[in-house]
Amino acid sequence: MDKKVKPRLARGLQDILPAQMLARQRMIDVIRGVYEGYGFVPLDTSAIEFMDVLNGSGGEEAQDSIFQVANPDNPDIPLGLRFDLTVPLARVIAQYADLQRPFRRYQVAPVWRADKPGAGRFRQFTQFDLDSVGVKSEVADTEIITAVCDTLSALDVGGFRVRVSSRKVLNLLMPFADIPTEAAADVFRVLDKLDKLGLDKVKLELTTGYKDKSGDTIRGLGLSSGQVQKIEQFLEIKAAKRDDVLVQIKEAFSGLEQADSAIGELETISKHLTALGYHDDCVALDLSIARGLAYYTGPVFEAILLDAPEFGSVVGGGRYDNLVMRFLGEAAPATGASIGVDRLLAAMAHLKRIKMVNSTAQVLITRFDDNLIDDYLTMAYELRRAGVRTELYVGTAKRVGKQLKYADQTDIPIAIMMGSDEKEKGTVTIKDLAQGRVMSKDMSGHEQWKTERPGQFEAPRSELVQTIKHLLTQIED
Amino acid sequence: MDKKVKPRLARGLQDILPAQMLARQRMIDVIRGVYEGYGFVPLDTSAIEFMDVLNGSGGEEAQDSIFQVANPDNPDIPLGLRFDLTVPLARVIAQYADLQRPFRRYQVAPVWRADKPGAGRFRQFTQFDLDSVGVKSEVADTEIITAVCDTLSALDVGGFRVRVSSRKVLNLLMPFADIPTEAAADVFRVLDKLDKLGLDKVKLELTTGYKDKSGDTIRGLGLSSGQVQKIEQFLEIKAAKRDDVLVQIKEAFSGLEQADSAIGELETISKHLTALGYHDDCVALDLSIARGLAYYTGPVFEAILLDAPEFGSVVGGGRYDNLVMRFLGEAAPATGASIGVDRLLAAMAHLKRIKMVNSTAQVLITRFDDNLIDDYLTMAYELRRAGVRTELYVGTAKRVGKQLKYADQTDIPIAIMMGSDEKEKGTVTIKDLAQGRVMSKDMSGHEQWKTERPGQFEAPRSELVQTIKHLLTQIED
Repeated sequence: MDKKVKPRLARGLQDILPAQMLARQRMIDVIRGVYEGYGFVPLDTSAIEFMDVLNGSGGEEAQDSIFQVANPDNPDIPLGLRFDLTVPLARVIAQYADLQRPFRRYQVAPVWRADKPGAGRFRQFTQFDLDSVGVKSEVADTEIITAVCDTLSALDVGGFRVRVSSRKVLNLLMPFADIPTEAAADVFRVLDKLDKLGLDKVKLELTTGYKDKSGDTIRGLGLSSGQVQKIEQFLEIKAAKRDDVLVQIKEAFSGLEQADSAIGELETISKHLTALGYHDDCVALDLSIARGLAYYTGPVFEAILLDAPEFGSVVGGGRYDNLVMRFLGEAAPATGASIGVDRLLAAMAHLKRIKMVNSTAQVLITRFDDNLIDDYLTMAYELRRAGVRTELYVGTAKRVGKQLKYADQTDIPIAIMMGSDEKEKGTVTIKDLAQGRVMSKDMSGHEQWKTERPGQFEAPRSELVQTIKHLLTQIED
Repeated sequence: MDKKVKPRLARGLQDILPAQMLARQRMIDVIRGVYEGYGFVPLDTSAIEFMDVLNGSGGEEAQDSIFQVANPDNPDIPLGLRFDLTVPLARVIAQYADLQRPFRRYQVAPVWRADKPGAGRFRQFTQFDLDSVGVKSEVADTEIITAVCDTLSALDVGGFRVRVSSRKVLNLLMPFADIPTEAAADVFRVLDKLDKLGLDKVKLELTTGYKDKSGDTIRGLGLSSGQVQKIEQFLEIKAAKRDDVLVQIKEAFSGLEQADSAIGELETISKHLTALGYHDDCVALDLSIARGLAYYTGPVFEAILLDAPEFGSVVGGGRYDNLVMRFLGEAAPATGASIGVDRLLAAMAHLKRIKMVNSTAQVLITRFDDNLIDDYLTMAYELRRAGVRTELYVGTAKRVGKQLKYADQTDIPIAIMMGSDEKEKGTVTIKDLAQGRVMSKDMSGHEQWKTERPGQFEAPRSELVQTIKHLLTQIED
């Protein structure tokens, strides 16, 4: 025998064990149901891409952290693992000329990022993306936003808010404050720190700079006090109602070139949302949302859970009309959203809005007497064929008490016991573990169960299936 | 703008476009349903593993073809992409001491192999694995085999056969033919070529060797004619009925050490199968199945589709009690099966047993008149909220004829049209594309539809949802 290998994973990687995996699957099924209700279709792409396909898609810090894969055909042409699902989508759009247009697809798949892992930050995580490609209309943006709302409602996350902004409207800030367009990226980079640093520090960074706590010099952008005043005016645009925000934006930017079309886009989306019943409580207009500006070209949005804002944005998205440009040399209108499945799961677990169970089985058939194994097998298959998810205990524990403990630990709600006595009588003993989960012990400390305890009863063997099905309707109520 | 990047994938990698992806998802949902019916639970593992975890698991040619991944933390400790789901399972079993036992899990996930791609041989493909760990009993092997049968039945693959053999019974061939145990691997390697080369060449290779067509010398194993006669006698063990095969095996191997326990295992499984209604037509005993001997320790099996045997084994599995040994230094009983999802899909597509559709939507709402967009949106959301999967046409085609073509190409069965006339009347026009898929053209060659053609009718707008739901029940019949 060789030296033993230590069973372990590299830093930042994880296994998803059954309870968490069952919760993730339920979540994915719900999201899929909503997206298919909108007529979106699934796509799967290769996890491994050419590095030049992944690189240079602009605006994503993620591409600095691509996991490199050795190319078995040619070591000089590097490969990598995808870091999101949007770049592969853009490649697919460019690669398959006869793909249906509009191409409205969803994809749920792992992505990989080799950057520094931390609490809740893994190097492999699952994204659920939804995108419409080939559609200029605000109807497409509206559908993406409402699909996100419908998903969060269907997942029963509690209160949530989708905050919608617009790259085009944000761009108006530059002429508004008389700042050269080239400085836009720097200005927004600083404004993005507002939540973290507060207005005073941000104002210093926009103008003269300052020394931070550790004594490091934070360079200022050198804006004038007049420019900063305009930015402050812009930052004050805020209201609970979308219509009020629109009025304020219009007032602030009136007369600026392109203001009408930029604001008009948001107005149309807001109007559609209202007509469809998505009101201010679930979708807000909020210009503090910027979301990787270099990437997006129109409306952008993110969603937060009102009871768990500390988890940040659990869904993000927007319009990105230029992403296919790198491949085709021409733009293709595209708009979409991405759900961070693992982050959303973590937030919902934190809010105790997810039921964690370790089992798919509804019934455990215990192995009371090895001589009756054929009877147990027959019962198991009878139940399975009747649509009852059934596990036959095949472990090493001989004592029924231990087998019941196994049912309890794995959250199986019903156990069935049959010894030779019951077999002779033509009965089975059914234990409703969901009702009475505590084991009793006899005087010598051995676990046992009592015939009279609540949640345990005998039923005719011939009525096993009906009895269990009836009991399940009661338990699952 | 930078130089354009060519949109492409590396050799052997593929994208799964919507029609194929929908078929794959349906397949995966069905398999999952069956496995959960048996009470198995899902697991997900990291795609990236340490190379020493992947290496040296014995018997798998796959480990020579691991995709290497650069380790972002330490380039000297290599990482790789998993080549199957069994090695990661063994790692998980060894790594998490408090995992429930028995651990009965399924996992559906991609695996990667960097070997030479070919027709239908991809470097990333999806496996659906099912395993019971911690269970010695033949009940576990029986459950794996019946779960495979139930799955193939539920998938409606047509005729199939699971062919069961046994590593332990095959090992009896060595004492039976008086061949040293050390030669077992070589003998089975040669016997594995039986289908490809035929008995004569195999006999030559077992004895003196021969020169093949290209003049290359194939070395013989140097067995005696007496030994080969015994092997021939073994190879003649074959019968349509499991019971007859068992009788023949017992006769052949009677008196050999360990024959009783080796054959007893198969006999018990066969008895269980019979009791549960899995008869000779779906599960056969067939000693010509060897399946990577070094890996397995007990019963082994594979499944073929009777109408597409050229696709080879679409499911394979068996008992492998030693796989955790590398990590723990002790054996853990384990038995399982792996479905090659992509291969099974390809076989079913070849047999035309898969309906390929390009859409999830049941209804397309056409955009007849852009002024009515709010009406179209309202209809779409009404239908969606009633559970009807609905797409609102958001593409660039203005003509309704082109929009109907889009519905047709993407297999959406129903289209809805409403112009200002209908709006005034309070009606919608419903087109049953499933019934009359051919477009008619008017005299100048333009596509049009006629009010009187079968499959198209007007309905009150107020009864839209009921009308569509009724039509869907007719279409889906």
